[in-house]
Amino acid sequence: MVFKFTVSSAWRATRTLWLLMLVSVSVSICVCRAASSLEEDSAMENIVTEKRAEESHRQDTADLLIFIMLLTLTILTIWLFKHRRFRFLHETGLAMIYGVLVGAVLRYGIHVPRDISNVTMSCHVNASPATLLVNVSGKFYEYTLKGEIGANEVNDIQDNEMLRKVTFDPEVFFNILLPPIIFHAGYSLKRRHFFLNMGSILAYAFLGTVVSCFVIGLLMYGCVLLMKQVGQLGGDFFFTDCLFFGAILSATDPVTVLAIFNELQVDVDLYALLFGESVLNDAVAVVLSSSIVAYQPQGDNSHTFEVMALLKSFGMFIGVFSGSFALGVATGIVTALVTKFTKLRDFPLLETALFFLMSWSTFLLAEACGFTGVVAVLFCGITQAHYTFNNLSPDSQDRTKQLFELLNFLAENFIFSYMGLALFTFQSHIFNPMFIVGAFVAVFIGRAANIYPLSLLLNLGRRNKIRSNFQHMMMFAGLRGAMTFALSIRDTATYARQMMFTTTLLVVFFTVWVCGGGTTQMLSCQHIRVGVDSDLDNSSSITDGSERRSTKQESAWLFRKWYNFDHNYVKPILTHSGPPLTATLPPCCGPLARFLTSPQAYENECQLKDDDSDLILTDGDLNLTYGDITVSTDASGSHTSGAPAFAGASTSEDLDRELTYGDHELVMRGTRLVLPMDDSEPPFTDPHHRLRM
Amino acid sequence: MVFKFTVSSAWRATRTLWLLMLVSVSVSICVCRAASSLEEDSAMENIVTEKRAEESHRQDTADLLIFIMLLTLTILTIWLFKHRRFRFLHETGLAMIYGVLVGAVLRYGIHVPRDISNVTMSCHVNASPATLLVNVSGKFYEYTLKGEIGANEVNDIQDNEMLRKVTFDPEVFFNILLPPIIFHAGYSLKRRHFFLNMGSILAYAFLGTVVSCFVIGLLMYGCVLLMKQVGQLGGDFFFTDCLFFGAILSATDPVTVLAIFNELQVDVDLYALLFGESVLNDAVAVVLSSSIVAYQPQGDNSHTFEVMALLKSFGMFIGVFSGSFALGVATGIVTALVTKFTKLRDFPLLETALFFLMSWSTFLLAEACGFTGVVAVLFCGITQAHYTFNNLSPDSQDRTKQLFELLNFLAENFIFSYMGLALFTFQSHIFNPMFIVGAFVAVFIGRAANIYPLSLLLNLGRRNKIRSNFQHMMMFAGLRGAMTFALSIRDTATYARQMMFTTTLLVVFFTVWVCGGGTTQMLSCQHIRVGVDSDLDNSSSITDGSERRSTKQESAWLFRKWYNFDHNYVKPILTHSGPPLTATLPPCCGPLARFLTSPQAYENECQLKDDDSDLILTDGDLNLTYGDITVSTDASGSHTSGAPAFAGASTSEDLDRELTYGDHELVMRGTRLVLPMDDSEPPFTDPHHRLRM
Repeated sequence: MVFKFTVSSAWRATRTLWLLMLVSVSVSICVCRAASSLEEDSAMENIVTEKRAEESHRQDTADLLIFIMLLTLTILTIWLFKHRRFRFLHETGLAMIYGVLVGAVLRYGIHVPRDISNVTMSCHVNASPATLLVNVSGKFYEYTLKGEIGANEVNDIQDNEMLRKVTFDPEVFFNILLPPIIFHAGYSLKRRHFFLNMGSILAYAFLGTVVSCFVIGLLMYGCVLLMKQVGQLGGDFFFTDCLFFGAILSATDPVTVLAIFNELQVDVDLYALLFGESVLNDAVAVVLSSSIVAYQPQGDNSHTFEVMALLKSFGMFIGVFSGSFALGVATGIVTALVTKFTKLRDFPLLETALFFLMSWSTFLLAEACGFTGVVAVLFCGITQAHYTFNNLSPDSQDRTKQLFELLNFLAENFIFSYMGLALFTFQSHIFNPMFIVGAFVAVFIGRAANIYPLSLLLNLGRRNKIRSNFQHMMMFAGLRGAMTFALSIRDTATYARQMMFTTTLLVVFFTVWVCGGGTTQMLSCQHIRVGVDSDLDNSSSITDGSERRSTKQESAWLFRKWYNFDHNYVKPILTHSGPPLTATLPPCCGPLARFLTSPQAYENECQLKDDDSDLILTDGDLNLTYGDITVSTDASGSHTSGAPAFAGASTSEDLDRELTYGDHELVMRGTRLVLPMDDSEPPFTDPHHRLRM
Repeated sequence: MVFKFTVSSAWRATRTLWLLMLVSVSVSICVCRAASSLEEDSAMENIVTEKRAEESHRQDTADLLIFIMLLTLTILTIWLFKHRRFRFLHETGLAMIYGVLVGAVLRYGIHVPRDISNVTMSCHVNASPATLLVNVSGKFYEYTLKGEIGANEVNDIQDNEMLRKVTFDPEVFFNILLPPIIFHAGYSLKRRHFFLNMGSILAYAFLGTVVSCFVIGLLMYGCVLLMKQVGQLGGDFFFTDCLFFGAILSATDPVTVLAIFNELQVDVDLYALLFGESVLNDAVAVVLSSSIVAYQPQGDNSHTFEVMALLKSFGMFIGVFSGSFALGVATGIVTALVTKFTKLRDFPLLETALFFLMSWSTFLLAEACGFTGVVAVLFCGITQAHYTFNNLSPDSQDRTKQLFELLNFLAENFIFSYMGLALFTFQSHIFNPMFIVGAFVAVFIGRAANIYPLSLLLNLGRRNKIRSNFQHMMMFAGLRGAMTFALSIRDTATYARQMMFTTTLLVVFFTVWVCGGGTTQMLSCQHIRVGVDSDLDNSSSITDGSERRSTKQESAWLFRKWYNFDHNYVKPILTHSGPPLTATLPPCCGPLARFLTSPQAYENECQLKDDDSDLILTDGDLNLTYGDITVSTDASGSHTSGAPAFAGASTSEDLDRELTYGDHELVMRGTRLVLPMDDSEPPFTDPHHRLRM
């Protein structure tokens, strides 16, 4: 009886869903048609600027509506998939499929007649100013520059207004859609296992990305030379173009794979390696690609090798990366200080708004200073999670996480559905089979040249080796996604860039659908453990003293130094947690220490010192995405009894303890966040803490 | 000791605040300077389009940064005010002050030399197309139309690039900033007292706004005629312009006053009247103003009276308003159905995303169809609160409320700080003392002509009279805000419109600062009760049977009919609450009723029927804004004992009960939202419910 009911309700839901899809797609397309036909009619009349602007606005909203409908469809379908536990297609893959379908309809199903009102003027001006004032029979109209257009595109533009309208300004991706995605990644990056594997992650992200970029670049250059021989190349394609292509294809985005890892609870080390690498290599790839574009030898022969230009590019890479890093961290620190020294936490709305604005201003500040906003936002997110998050009220902690989760979800799915759409609506695709095959091979070899040699090197230094099945999995999980797309669509003016864009699109499609879809198969094929409870992992390491010591040895000397400095000085200055500065700073700094130490820090001192570890964001806390939280909550009760063992442990062991017990504390925080408690005395209201006292 | 500590921490906070202000303002201004000087330098070099676009982008981000910094400052200062319980200045008023200050600095402090790259071209074209392709020495550049510019402005534009850049496209306000504000208003409108005063609110909103519009329009026309006599008028000013001015000045926005009402717990009827009126009259004013603009008599004499044109305008008002209304309600209903028939509630992120997208698509759909998006969004918000909200998971209910609360907060403060800025940065102000004085008088008389005669009329029909001190307070609370500003900045092309814009700005400043700031004084001067606990109000009406009956008589026959229909048919179809349709529909509709009734409805039937009343959003639930929730939560415990009195009441008394006990249920919901309970069996997990069983 119960079963029958469930089936019929699921069937009902499915039917409703499909009905809705049909209705919504047809509505949005009808509206678009209506909007464009209205436009046409009025063009016959006396043309008034007001009217034209209004209709242009109407067309714009209709186009945006298509995307909203696409996203709505994606959400409904993905719900169905989740409901039925289909894991072969992630929401981003689905968004692309819908995008492709709607793109095909727009391209072949609807033909909007040529817009007669595009006027080509020939004026003798030497410059192309940002603003143009056009004097039309006595009235002045203001025009703003949108960009350069290839001579061959001029006719295309006039040909199909509809397709052109659906094509967004490429900068939208960089300035509006990417920042929340990257910030969210940074804000979720603070995990125990991320810090344990810090060295390896940095190696993969920096060294690996550069290796991958040059390997792909060189291979593609070979391919291009071959194509020139065969006569398959229809335009210029320089070595710098190849390197640029290598850079944009080196940004991995295994969002699909990570979602499945999360759901199946795959080994946490593997998760941390993949996630950490993908987050940081986005940043590296962005700066790398802009440095390559900036490579400009002096003189006329602008595509030869020149040491000075190379050094300049290299300097630019270092400068932009460190500048963006510094800016991001600086804004994070300012936010932490503001939230610490004001009592904003009494007003969660104000606090959340401030947090949002400060994080956004990082992006704007970096862009205005000529750095890379996306990179700054990433490091701002990491800093906010590490410091500011501790100062927020429980309500704001929830709000900020949920806000950026939502923004990330919307932006990501928008980009992927736009990718699908662009396959048909982008006007200057250049499908070159030889180049495409070459690119696929190069991407494969580039990823291999990143993962295997580096893993070999890293395993020399690691106690906890990266096993070969992990290496294969990392190799397989080298999906390309939002960042690759945003970088490749940013400039599609030349022949080389257009061919790159087309090829990139195909690489993204292939990796997301095939590699993303095959994740579960690959996991079982490589015999990688699933269903690993990270808390159980901990408890085993508690009982096994030797393994605990190995953790200690693994974390490098430099990292331990940094950790101690952070724990003793930075955290107490920037947050309410950590030991009071009066205890850690030399006595001569007494007044300053008293000024900077928050009253809560003194309170905390009376309690166990590991109190700040509960501010680490770990898996259980940040992956509430689809409400699968029960597992970690259950685990908390069973392991807290082991906690009193290290009451009174020395500060130098804090790192171990934080890394090992982060999750426990986290689970408590998870509980505390939900209950409307006054945070000024959390340790006494929490039963687990009381146990320990 | 404790006191001393508080003072010193407050002092520290204040110091930090001011330091931060100085730093942030100077940083943002420096960045702007740097960005513009960079622009200048490169203009000397070989001008490359790419570079120019990049610098234009840099300048844009720097300008946006100014606003972000302004908002940040506002947030920090308003925190200080709230912390110290200063009530004389609301955050919006403060945002304006900061805006004025920064505007003055930008205007007089920074002088950016004339941008040499604006080129005025004279081409012989008859049309001003939306897209322009310019052939600059063989290369094609695409330009998009921004709008018409008065001939006298051409020089201004070239004169100060900085100020021009800080000026946003007026459509930004209408298409980006207003929708979340209006949606949030609609989403918060579902209150007990709003429904009780429905008739009066509709009268004030529709009749009152029209009366106010025509009174202000006529008075201003008199003023304009006088000015013409005296020779103070420098351009055309027609009767339609006066009416338009009347329409835009009829949109009240007492956000400042309402915030204080909320904090001081002013009489709920007064609150409902003011809030309801202000929300709905925005919608009326928008449609009214666009209808007035659409008044176009045939032939050359386009400013004479013509019956046909008037009828057309009137028809347009009706058509656009009802179209927008229907669209908004329709999207709300679709969202309700989708959330009812899918099990999306298992995935709060998907649910919130869907809710957000559907609500946004209302706006886009309305705009694409030629209706008014803002009006559609308002009614969509009301429908979502009334139906969809019931189907959402507790998590999503929280998330959606918090999301729109945040968006509303940011958008509102942005608009108000932009207003302040516009006082100095807007380039075509026309300060005409006579017009300004006339406008102030007209606004005053227009508001009086709205409130007093209508209140007199309404009091004839109302049992619960609108007392004269309430009338004075409503008169006083006729602030002008975001909507008035957005309507007046939308078109500033002609002399008349520029003068209107300047005057509107002054009216907004005056009303927000003076009327907003004097609210507490006015309240005490008019002897209006403060500290009214709406729950205590209820309990007195329970014990007093006669008053309860009076409530019944007050709600009009039509409203009762609608309520019964809604309760018996619409709610059960669209939500999980209400009686099962199998019970309310005639037996012939059996299969359909079974299909549409949600399984929860059968469960609910076994319990008390007033279960759907807990889905009303009321004061306690929606005004968590600054966390002052304790009062209503305390009240819940003390009054629930009266509840068992109406176990088993008949359906016809549901309205009374819902209206009277909405708050109780609400408080429970408030509690329930916080606890991670499964909503499928809420009545049994809630202790208050158990009491009643």
